[in-house]
Amino acid sequence: MTSTDPSRMDELPTPALVVDRPVFEANLATMSAARPGGTLRPHLKAFKSTDITRRLLAAGHDRFCAATIRELEGVAAAGIEADLLLANEVVDCSRLGRLAADGHRITVAVDSPETIRAAAAGGVRDVLIDVEVGLPRCGCAVEEAGPLADAARAAGLTVRGVMGYEGHLMMVAEPAERASRVERSMTKLLEAHAAVGGDIVSAGGTGTYAVNTWANEIQAGSYLLMDTQYATLEVPFRIALGVVATVISVSRKGWFVVDAGLKAFGMDHGNPTWPQGELQFCSDEHSTLKPSDGDPLPAVGDRIRLLPAHVDPTVAKHEQYWVLDGDAVVDRWPVDLRHW
Amino acid sequence: MTSTDPSRMDELPTPALVVDRPVFEANLATMSAARPGGTLRPHLKAFKSTDITRRLLAAGHDRFCAATIRELEGVAAAGIEADLLLANEVVDCSRLGRLAADGHRITVAVDSPETIRAAAAGGVRDVLIDVEVGLPRCGCAVEEAGPLADAARAAGLTVRGVMGYEGHLMMVAEPAERASRVERSMTKLLEAHAAVGGDIVSAGGTGTYAVNTWANEIQAGSYLLMDTQYATLEVPFRIALGVVATVISVSRKGWFVVDAGLKAFGMDHGNPTWPQGELQFCSDEHSTLKPSDGDPLPAVGDRIRLLPAHVDPTVAKHEQYWVLDGDAVVDRWPVDLRHW
Repeated sequence: MTSTDPSRMDELPTPALVVDRPVFEANLATMSAARPGGTLRPHLKAFKSTDITRRLLAAGHDRFCAATIRELEGVAAAGIEADLLLANEVVDCSRLGRLAADGHRITVAVDSPETIRAAAAGGVRDVLIDVEVGLPRCGCAVEEAGPLADAARAAGLTVRGVMGYEGHLMMVAEPAERASRVERSMTKLLEAHAAVGGDIVSAGGTGTYAVNTWANEIQAGSYLLMDTQYATLEVPFRIALGVVATVISVSRKGWFVVDAGLKAFGMDHGNPTWPQGELQFCSDEHSTLKPSDGDPLPAVGDRIRLLPAHVDPTVAKHEQYWVLDGDAVVDRWPVDLRHW
Repeated sequence: MTSTDPSRMDELPTPALVVDRPVFEANLATMSAARPGGTLRPHLKAFKSTDITRRLLAAGHDRFCAATIRELEGVAAAGIEADLLLANEVVDCSRLGRLAADGHRITVAVDSPETIRAAAAGGVRDVLIDVEVGLPRCGCAVEEAGPLADAARAAGLTVRGVMGYEGHLMMVAEPAERASRVERSMTKLLEAHAAVGGDIVSAGGTGTYAVNTWANEIQAGSYLLMDTQYATLEVPFRIALGVVATVISVSRKGWFVVDAGLKAFGMDHGNPTWPQGELQFCSDEHSTLKPSDGDPLPAVGDRIRLLPAHVDPTVAKHEQYWVLDGDAVVDRWPVDLRHW
């Protein structure tokens, strides 16, 4: 925060990405109690902020994962000392290798001979074997894991263990079904781990952290800020994230328009939510809304708070979080881990 | 371009936003022939680039419109002299007023007493009365237009005319139906114009530029780059925009994964398209694809080009365009008009 930053929510330039600090802190504390220290590997892709990374460090977490090289470069540039995993395959590891050469502990996921060669050629020393556990995305087949680990060791790499993301199970609504399907996924991962060796069995996310008792570290990030989709699950985290918008037009026909649209929200999980009424549609820089039956229309200049449907891509569109305690702006956290 | 920039498409860091230069130039020339000079007011929101703005200036267009204040600030900061319209309502016009005070020709849309007061208080001298012509978004009712123009003049503002965006008609598939519905919308706008006065009747977009013969300037931007949704219309523009991605994982089960996901694409109009096969789903930083029946899987490290479904929000996620002529990288245009 600088002396020229706004001090109250109604002074923010809009659209403004906001974080409710008490809710954020409660979410952080709840997960840190459930998954303390190194049993959690917070996922930078969800929040893209070194300010938040430092708060996780202060809470005892010293390992992080990322989806992009830029996320790790940003953490390293901020002087954060931690165990850093690129939880994704990379064909050119030269940028990761430079981080490793600078003394950072860098590990990268591999699932093929090509990505093993890339890690070795780029100067990355540590790898996890990424195993496909049901989500049709990256990861080798279980029976490929042992031979890939052998190939990695033959290439001079240290194989620290396995990872396998059961992303297809995050939103299974019924908790018992979610738990039993996670068990089946993790049975595959443990079978691969037996063939691979190493200390790490990395998996999970905000939707499965409580039932995934097989992984020894959980890759979760959304729990800190949350969104309307994750909030449909029975998880002990509340929505801390919002987008504050200004009413710019009010129609006699019963609708009003705010200055936050689909360029301010991740839209892949659908429209944002306005708890006080109905969001009818988003345009690039507008949303059209109607108050709930019987409620009055707002006035031009009023502020409203919208709740994003998907945290990660929403955050990636903004330059900063404005941190709120009630209506007071108490901090500003740059979204400094964006892009690639 | 600098000497360290990549010179070929397969050297680009991915995901990479790319523009096919010959297609872009053909789109630009086609529209400039149909709507020369000031009969087109290109919309900055679609491309967010001062490099592209300069190319439009060179083609004879000297008036532009924008959806955000930052878009106009960026154009002004780049030293571009033009007639600049914020085609949107603004509650705090102080930033626009500073541009006007610096000698830029700034006009802002108004549709209420509050936005008129904001323009006058902020130091903006020129306004258009924004009229709702069927899209439930901003704009006053036709019968409010004259009184608002009177109020604006009483506040010391110059009323340059009217605007009214028939955005609900852009994607009407049947050309004759689109034309007749545009006529009905523009009849409203002309009725408002008769009450308002001024020289400008501003409307339209890429979907209606050819049939909207009532507006004397067309606000179009998507035609330059295009997307898979606009390409379903019978318009003489082709898709110049793409996102180049790298294959990072190939599964024995028949799918493969690239390193461009929903953080690289505007997702509100649906998934991007891969012409050579099927895109199954996008994750934050991945897309899972299957080749068309009978086609072989690609190899890890191969590049593919994906076509976005919606140009404006896709562009807004990227730091730059890489400009291609075939596989050669011939230029780099920063996306320098992002954010708010």
